[in-house]
Parts: sequence; C-alpha cells; structure tokens
Amino acid sequence: MKIALAQLNYHVGNFESNTAKIIQNIQKARKNGADLVVFAELCVCGYPARDFLEFSEFISQCAAAAQKIAAVCTDIACIIGLPIPNNKTEGKDLNNSAYFIENGKVKAIVNKALLPNYDIFDEYRYFEPSTEFNCIEFKGHRIALTICEDLWNTIENPLYITRPMDTLIKQQPDVMINIAASPFAYNHDEERIAILKDNAARYNLPLFYVNHVGAQTELIFDGGSLVFDNGGNLIDELPYFEECLTYYTLDDKGAVSFDHRSTIKKERESDIAQIHQALILGIQDYFYKSGFTRAILGLSGGIDSAVVCALAAEALGAENVMAVLLPSKFSSDHSLKDAEDLVSNLGCMSETIAIKNITEAFETALSPQFTDLPFNIAEENIQSRSRAVLLMAMCNKFGFILLNTSNKSEAAVGYGTLYGDMCGGISVIGDVYKTQVFELARHINREREIIPENSIIKPPSAELRPGQKDSDSLPEYDILDKILAEYIEYRCSAAEIVKMGYDEQTVHRAIRLINLAEHKRYQTPPILRVSPKAFGMGRRMPIVGKYLQ
Amino acid sequence: MKIALAQLNYHVGNFESNTAKIIQNIQKARKNGADLVVFAELCVCGYPARDFLEFSEFISQCAAAAQKIAAVCTDIACIIGLPIPNNKTEGKDLNNSAYFIENGKVKAIVNKALLPNYDIFDEYRYFEPSTEFNCIEFKGHRIALTICEDLWNTIENPLYITRPMDTLIKQQPDVMINIAASPFAYNHDEERIAILKDNAARYNLPLFYVNHVGAQTELIFDGGSLVFDNGGNLIDELPYFEECLTYYTLDDKGAVSFDHRSTIKKERESDIAQIHQALILGIQDYFYKSGFTRAILGLSGGIDSAVVCALAAEALGAENVMAVLLPSKFSSDHSLKDAEDLVSNLGCMSETIAIKNITEAFETALSPQFTDLPFNIAEENIQSRSRAVLLMAMCNKFGFILLNTSNKSEAAVGYGTLYGDMCGGISVIGDVYKTQVFELARHINREREIIPENSIIKPPSAELRPGQKDSDSLPEYDILDKILAEYIEYRCSAAEIVKMGYDEQTVHRAIRLINLAEHKRYQTPPILRVSPKAFGMGRRMPIVGKYLQ
Repeated sequence: MKIALAQLNYHVGNFESNTAKIIQNIQKARKNGADLVVFAELCVCGYPARDFLEFSEFISQCAAAAQKIAAVCTDIACIIGLPIPNNKTEGKDLNNSAYFIENGKVKAIVNKALLPNYDIFDEYRYFEPSTEFNCIEFKGHRIALTICEDLWNTIENPLYITRPMDTLIKQQPDVMINIAASPFAYNHDEERIAILKDNAARYNLPLFYVNHVGAQTELIFDGGSLVFDNGGNLIDELPYFEECLTYYTLDDKGAVSFDHRSTIKKERESDIAQIHQALILGIQDYFYKSGFTRAILGLSGGIDSAVVCALAAEALGAENVMAVLLPSKFSSDHSLKDAEDLVSNLGCMSETIAIKNITEAFETALSPQFTDLPFNIAEENIQSRSRAVLLMAMCNKFGFILLNTSNKSEAAVGYGTLYGDMCGGISVIGDVYKTQVFELARHINREREIIPENSIIKPPSAELRPGQKDSDSLPEYDILDKILAEYIEYRCSAAEIVKMGYDEQTVHRAIRLINLAEHKRYQTPPILRVSPKAFGMGRRMPIVGKYLQ
Repeated sequence: MKIALAQLNYHVGNFESNTAKIIQNIQKARKNGADLVVFAELCVCGYPARDFLEFSEFISQCAAAAQKIAAVCTDIACIIGLPIPNNKTEGKDLNNSAYFIENGKVKAIVNKALLPNYDIFDEYRYFEPSTEFNCIEFKGHRIALTICEDLWNTIENPLYITRPMDTLIKQQPDVMINIAASPFAYNHDEERIAILKDNAARYNLPLFYVNHVGAQTELIFDGGSLVFDNGGNLIDELPYFEECLTYYTLDDKGAVSFDHRSTIKKERESDIAQIHQALILGIQDYFYKSGFTRAILGLSGGIDSAVVCALAAEALGAENVMAVLLPSKFSSDHSLKDAEDLVSNLGCMSETIAIKNITEAFETALSPQFTDLPFNIAEENIQSRSRAVLLMAMCNKFGFILLNTSNKSEAAVGYGTLYGDMCGGISVIGDVYKTQVFELARHINREREIIPENSIIKPPSAELRPGQKDSDSLPEYDILDKILAEYIEYRCSAAEIVKMGYDEQTVHRAIRLINLAEHKRYQTPPILRVSPKAFGMGRRMPIVGKYLQ
C-alpha cells in the first residue's frame, strides 16, 4: 500500500480554499500512485475553529465540503478530519472526527476520544469524547486510526482515564495513523517525537503522523509530520514550516520504505532558529489570511522594534514594511541614528514624525486640570499614546496593519503603555522574553549586520523621561526572565522560586507586577505563540483577583 | 435539623477575606441555633479562579483555609466548596469539591460530576469529573449533596451522559443540597427555578440551593438562592444582588419550615430592572475588589455615556464620578447642553476639555504623509483617540478608572474606534443592546428625569463628521438588534435569519460586520455580562477566520 502524507496550510472557516487544496492534493497523490492520502485533524474547517463550531450552519458546510472531497476519491482513499454531529442523544453536540473515504463514500468514521482542554485547547467545549474504537480494513491492512491527543495519554502523569490504542491493539492492526493539529512551541518538536516514538515502540507498529502547517492568528503549526517503523525508529520527519506531500510504501510485513530524501534532522535546530522561522510564518499567515499586505510599526532605535521590523521585512518583503520614527524631546540622538541605520540596512519604507507639538497640545489642554502637579507617568504615557494615535492614523489612511513590538518580559510586568506601545493588530515578539530578543537579534545578524550593533548593546530604555533606563524600575533581564519563566511557564509559587536561590524581594515584586498587569494584557493584541505558555488564549487569569498581589 | 443558607459575596483569590467571611457566618449561624450552614461552590477561593487553579500553591492555600474553617466548626456542621487534588493517578489534577465538615473535621467529600465547559465555563480545563456518589448521614438525615451543574443535566437535550442524582436517589436520601456558582443573565433566574423545581419534583425531595452573590470582573452572581419542598414547590427565594443568611427547619418527615418573611417574587422583575441591578453590583465590585473608588468617563451628550454615568453615580456615589466633556468642532450645541444637564442632575464632578488644538496638532504632524487626501475615517478616529488619551491621562494623574461606554450593538458591528471610545477598565453596557439602552434610560428616569429627555429622543450620532448619524451606516437599531441577537445569542446562520423575514442584504451585511470586528473586540475591556451570550470569555471566535465574511 502506498500512503501519501499531506502536510498543508489550512485557513479557519475558509471552506472554499481548504476544500480546493485537499482536492488538489488528492488528485496529485492519485497521479503519483498513492492508495491512500492522509490529511490533518479538522482540516476541512481549519484548526482552531473555536465558536464557529457552535453554528449548525458551519457544521453543515463541513459536511458539504466532505461530500465534495468524497466525490473525487475514486481510485484513491483519503482520511480527512472534520466536526460532525454527535449521533447520540446524550453528551455534547459534536464529535471531532476522521472520515475514511473510499470509492467516493465514507467507509468509516473515527471519533476522537481524548480531548485536550488545557492551555490553548478547548476541545471539550464542543466535542463529546468517543468510547468506541474500531480498526479500518483497507487493501489487506488493518489500520488503527486515531486523532492527535488520542496517542498523548502519557504513562507517568496520565491526563485521561483511557487510552484508545489499548483497545485498538486487541483488534491486531498492522499500522497506526494519527492525524493531528499540534501547534508549535520551541520545545514541542522533541516532545512530539518522544511521545510518538513511545507509541510506535509500545504497540510495535509503524506509525504515520500528519500535522498542520501554517498560522491561525496566534497559533503557529510547524508541520514536522513523522513516520516511524514498527521498532519505534523515526524514519522520516517532514519539513518544518512548509507544506509538503510525501509518499511511503507499507509492505505486508509492516515494513515502511520511501524513495525521497529523508529530512530527518540529525541535530535539532536551536530554539531561537525555530522561533525565528515560526514568527516569520506567523506574520505571513496573519497578513495573507486577513487579506492585508503591508505592515507599519514605530521604530524607536531600541532592540524590540528593530527585531520586529527585521522579521516583518523578511516575512512580507521590505517594500511592504513602513517604519515610523516618532522622536520626542527625550529621544536620544543615538536612537534616531540606530533606527535610521536599520531602515537603511533593510531597505524598508520610513517616515519621521516628531511628537513634540502633539504632546504639548495635550499638556496645554490638560493644564487647567493638571495645574502644577509634577511630571509623572501621566505625561510619560501621553507620549506613548500620541505615537499610537499617529501609527493608527497611518493605518486608517493607507491600509497598514500595526505590528506590536512589546516583548514577553515587558508584557509580563506591565512595563508598557496600554493604548500606547501595547497597540497593534498582532504582537510579534510578545511570547519572546527580552533575553531571547537579544538572541534573536544575533540570529538575524548571523550573516551580516541587519540590526545595528548599537541597538543590541546599549542599555534598554523606554526614553519617556530624561535618562530613563529599564533597569531603574526592573531587575536586570537575565534575572527577571528566569523568575518570569518559573512563574508563567511552570506555575511555581514565590516561595518555590525563592527556594531556587532568587532574591526574595525581587521575586515577590516580579510576581506582584505580573498579577497587577492582568488588566493590561487582557486588552492587548493576539500574540504569536512560540513557547509552551504564552499570554493570550492559553493563559486565563482573573483580572479582579487577589492571589499574590 | 436547622439549616442555614449563606449567600455571600466572595473575592477570587482573596483567602483572607473569604475565610474571615465564612467563619463569621458559621459563628453567627451557630449563635442562631443552626445545625448546618451551607456555603456556595468554590467559596473558599472564589469563582471563577481560572488559571490560579494551576498553581499548586493556590490549591495549598485552599486547603489551609479549609483547615481554619474546620477548626471553628464545633457544635455546628458546614458545607464549603473548594478545589482539591484528585487522589487518582489518571485524569486531571483537581476535583471541584464540597467538604462536609463536622466536629472540626472533614467528614465527607463530594466531587462534582458534571463540569460545565461552555460559554463562560471552563471547568474541564481543571477538574476531573466524579464517578462515585454517596449520601451523607447527619443528625438522622441522609443528605444528597451535589454541586451546581450536577443537577442541570436536562432530560430533553442532555449535555452529559450521567445524572448523579439517579445514583444518589438509590441510597434513599431525605433531602438534597446543591451548592452553586450560577452567574446572572437576564433570563437565568427563571431557568434556574424551573430546572431546580424539576429536580425537587422528580426525586420527590426537599432541595436547598445556595448561590454566590457579587461580581468577579465580568461575571455577576445574582444570588437568588432557593428552597423547595418535596413536592417541587418553591417555598423560599433569597434576595437578589445582596448577601444574606437564612434559616430553615427540616423535620423528620421532610417538611421544611422557616420563620422569616419569604422573599419569593410573586412577579418576576422586568429584564431591564434586573439588568439595572446587575450593572450596579458589577460596577461596585469591580471598583471595590480592585481597590479603586473613583470612575471617569467621557460624556458626549448621547444616551450611552449618559446611562453609564448615571449607573456609575448610583454605584459609586456621584461624588466619585468624573464626567469629562470633550467637544470637537463637530460636536453639536445640544450635545454639550445635554451633557451639562446630566452632570447637573447627578451632581457628579465634571471637566470640559476641548480637543480642537490636539486634533489639529495631529493633522499638522501628519500633513507631510496625508498630503491633500480627503478627510476620512483616519481623521474621525484621531478625534476619538485624542479623547481616550486625555481620559487616560486623567486616570494616570488622579487615579480614576475609565469606564467604557460602548453598547453591545456598536461592539457587535465594530461601530467604535479601537484605542478610542473602545478604551476603559471595564465595559458597563457592552452586553446591553442599543434598544435596551433606551429602556435602561427610561428605567433610570422612572422616578424623575436624570438622563435628559433630549439624550433619549435625539437620533444617535458619533459626531465625528458634520451631520453624521448612526443610521447613515447602520440599519435602524430596532431591526439591527434583533438580527444581532439571532446571530450572537442563538447562533443562527444568515439563511436562517433571512427565513425569519429580515431583509437579506441587511442580514448579510450585519453578520459580515460582526465577523470583521472580531479583532477589535479582542482588545476591548472586560464586559459586564448580563445576557446569555456576552462578548468576552463566553464567546471565543477566530480572528483571522473566513467564515461568513
């Protein structure tokens, strides 16, 4: 049996393009002699479709798309993923399902049993878990077909009380296929390989695993679909961050062969290299799927906006990126110079708009109220917000999308102005800690200096008052970022973090700042997710809560 | 047996105040001769604690609070709700539990079986459902204790495959107790009474039901705890929107008696009267629980900001409300007059800050880029955003919280400026359709004219360009709001709504606008929830999605 794996980039709710892409790949796979072509989980509607799933008309459209796909499945079978109505009275209205289509008809339906409902996942919101498991007979093979999380109930700290393969294995399958929607995080590729390898070895079966590729707002799917032989050996690893269609032959003894060049990674790419690729894809798909082409951002001369500008230029083409320099009376000469150097290195568009007259107009208008109260955060924020108004005016006039340039460290401790520098359509590095932003800058500069060295080496500053430095109000980033990760990624308490050796006062202050900034983060743009715990849909905190404040 | 029901206002994560409040009520109930006092679901930590539940230290604090509470339970028993570690290896790490405490010790633990995971609920994110059900023996009675949703698996369209009471009833209990966290929506009190009445009747047992009261950011708990006799008759209904502690005697034959005056409603309050009370409590608790006392808002002379201003004055005291009039060159004379009349009717603080010089400073700064391009949405938004910068500067200088004044109709179709009038710490009427805002204004004026009649009767306008009216770009609100409700509240498709008799083009346009505005709503403040489907945590839509755009 010749099996094709289709690792494709879908678009949530875009039935026309998803269906067309699936059909094209079926036709291509047939032409190349495949007996079966395997698509990813919920490929028909895209992942995550979120509350679109609550519209019965949306579910009907999924069914209609499946009909069209089935109609072309002659002389080839396919596996597609889609939501279908739950045919039992009790339980949720839907199942997260896989159709096995042969001879133009749905031959078998598999429903997902283990429904992830943590971090960014909300599957139990929509779907009833399956309790029935049956193998599928095809071309003399017996296929154990499962959906993503179905293979992820680990032995050590099992999140679920069942394991579908423990039932399926009793029916003596000779191959496992798993269709997935497994989003990128910088540590996730290794975890994915380990978990699936463990399944192949435990059940002593070859395993074909097909993932999504492409970004859906904040979630970036990295592809990296996998093929294991029955000894649990990884024998193929599909490319990351790109679409592909690859072919394998499964013989009657369960041996898997293929004649393309395997792209198994001898050495894993560095976290930063992966994050770099993920962010590029994240930016591209945000723009492409929302029908925009041109980005705008405020360029301060600091490292954050420089990195975002360089990423945007790589993702969209420098000709589609507008960098706006927005100096105030507190901007240093080197900041303007560094920003200009970056623009020149990238070849992107740029404008310079001084904000002095605007901030003065605000201060004059407010002078009856502010009287002679001293300069403080009110005036600092007026600067940041005036810049946002200018950038949004450029968006409204010329059709740009504003890129947010806040990093994860700032977003964590609330070191940013709501409706000021926290604005934007999408946050590019909001899941990248400041120390990682430095690494990312070095990585972007790996072949030549794109980001001016001075932007990398100078002490970070918001430049909202004379001589301001981030380190005046925050711990040094190399300490802060570690504390943040322990609290955010690993949910350690202050006491636990102090026990690791960090200064008690610093830890308590950092955690208090994080908790006090929940109201700000609630209103910030979606953040491209590259870590196992990003701000946004995967981290849901009370706003008016009192814990650890 | 004398049972006390404690309907209290908790604060998420505030162990100190929650524990103190629970202990005070135990002491009071004991003094009044109660054998058992019943508190609400997850009262120890507050509801919803959201991802605080992922911190093991948070769970330890819950256990420590339970210990303190148990220590005072001498000569009285109590039922409290708290999250506890799941003692089984498989499944989620926590249970949503009730402790039955007697003689200073936990005598029985009941875990919730039916975990709501729809709309604003995320319980399956944290908790493992229970599969074991046992009654509790106490003072010669056998109590079937369940937690909220456990009694909500309806017969007609059951969301769950089990029904805990079907098991418990076999153990022949003589009374049901249900502890709950059931948030307000204007239609929810009737539904709650009907569902619980049905339980009392079906199992032929008296039922004591204890709810939360008080707001946690966007969720408003309305109280309205209930007591049914074993015939399914409602015999007591606790007050709405306030704390109380009431007492009942359950005799050996299952008869329930009490000697206070029942507050059962002969006639349900109107939806608008309920919404009015809910919003007052929502504002109060947002401020009180976040430690602020003073609100600010922009007052345009239109009905939305007038209603929010009146609600804020009622909730916080007029002396704590600052109304800022921010006229532009497009503001009409009557708008200023109407705003001034409202300020005078309420007696709140007010300031007037003209924005003309500020918008001119922006337009001058942008003139090299904008050249002679015609006035459009860019200049309109500059006005709205300049106002937001001024209001936020006032917040930063004087410690106000900005109230957002967008209504649900505007929020739905994106008729508002992101980082402009869509700013605020909390959205007061973001779950109230424009047609309901008119009703609310009439209700606020029910005794005397607070909101100037002219603000109510004049055609709605954003006044961002000469002679602008909402009806220039939107359908009339009495039509629009009905279409919006069909799509938002009831998830009907365009085709289904057209079939109801609405104009096809209007329906498609409205739905397209709703979908295109997801990116704006993603960045707006939390919205006080008063309907069964509010924007925010209960409605999770893709941003870069293509369905129905």
